[in-house]
Amino acid sequence: MPVSQNIKVAVDAVVFGYTSKEGLSVLLIKRDIEPFKDMWALPGGLVGDEESLEDAVHRELKEETGISITYLEQLYSFGKPGRDPRNRVISITYYGLVKPDAFEVCADTDAGDAAWFNIKNLPLLAFDHPEIIETAWKRLQSKILYEPIGFELLDEKFPFSELEKLYVAVLDRPIDRRNFKKKITQFGFLDETDEKQTLGGAGRPGNLYRFNVKKYFRLKKAGINFEI
Amino acid sequence: MPVSQNIKVAVDAVVFGYTSKEGLSVLLIKRDIEPFKDMWALPGGLVGDEESLEDAVHRELKEETGISITYLEQLYSFGKPGRDPRNRVISITYYGLVKPDAFEVCADTDAGDAAWFNIKNLPLLAFDHPEIIETAWKRLQSKILYEPIGFELLDEKFPFSELEKLYVAVLDRPIDRRNFKKKITQFGFLDETDEKQTLGGAGRPGNLYRFNVKKYFRLKKAGINFEI
Repeated sequence: MPVSQNIKVAVDAVVFGYTSKEGLSVLLIKRDIEPFKDMWALPGGLVGDEESLEDAVHRELKEETGISITYLEQLYSFGKPGRDPRNRVISITYYGLVKPDAFEVCADTDAGDAAWFNIKNLPLLAFDHPEIIETAWKRLQSKILYEPIGFELLDEKFPFSELEKLYVAVLDRPIDRRNFKKKITQFGFLDETDEKQTLGGAGRPGNLYRFNVKKYFRLKKAGINFEI
Repeated sequence: MPVSQNIKVAVDAVVFGYTSKEGLSVLLIKRDIEPFKDMWALPGGLVGDEESLEDAVHRELKEETGISITYLEQLYSFGKPGRDPRNRVISITYYGLVKPDAFEVCADTDAGDAAWFNIKNLPLLAFDHPEIIETAWKRLQSKILYEPIGFELLDEKFPFSELEKLYVAVLDRPIDRRNFKKKITQFGFLDETDEKQTLGGAGRPGNLYRFNVKKYFRLKKAGINFEI
């Protein structure tokens, strides 16, 4: 067993956002220090001695991007020697989901810059961050098929077509729309409101829907399987 | 962002073994140093500066229990400040599966002692190790329902009843035996051999089965869903 150790611990976060205009997107920061100066990277940094891993993620996101997130989940720990050219840094990674208004608020940053990038059009990334984003996307793809976490990415009220488009963007494949609507509706956690979609394109504007968290937790407690 | 850091990184492993006699069991070591001296704990220890996380797990298992494992997967990173009474230690945990003969080979240890414990009859454990074992068991329970990793816990050839009993032990609930046999057989990755079970109880001895890894990977590649 090693007696001394020269390893540092960081957290990095893959924050996903979605709008039908921007598509499924990831929040990145531009590094203003070496290594990989001026390259894009995931927001993150060293964990403080007294703070929990989750607190470190929230603090780094606040400092580097100005964003607060409500949904956060641990992803994986990346620890290969050499993944950081300076010294050994193990990154405990998380993924988070934000509402569409987060696309407006990433001006306040202590990094060089912070911006959203469509997941299919990412810039050149520092470190092993492409692998981390790939892992996070896969996790999101598998999780959205058995837990309705997609609602964390939508406004409180949304047209049904927006939910469909979100699933297509996350899964990166077409879905059977009729079957999808049937399943989602049958789960019973979606409320149809009286409000109409205001910014419609062609066709009749549909009603807006809302995710009913209380109903969801009641159904979950009853052991309902939310597999799509 | 913190500039200095006083955090150490350890790995800990939840190694599962199974025999119909022992049931689903976890490999533990008896601590011979403070804190928690003489209490049982998961095998693990600090990560060496130059070794990968997985190499650290294999090394610690070898040193503390004498066991080599073939199946190893990262579980979760536990990092709450205060989880170790000495200094801040973040544990990157793994779970592993071993074949039944591993029950014979844990004599060689640099810890005070190493032994198997049935998962439903664990001793008092050091640190947050009960939470880590609970997390590992849940992961194993969910994974065994969509990936045939149970075979990693069985001998090369086994009576079908042994596979059934393994699932009951892992899931900790009864299963519909007829439905289970039908599903497992339909997947097509199980070969029935000509050999008979030698140590039968009552009734006719059944044929032994073997997991066909090649067939499994072929089916997996073809996109077969192995959900039970």
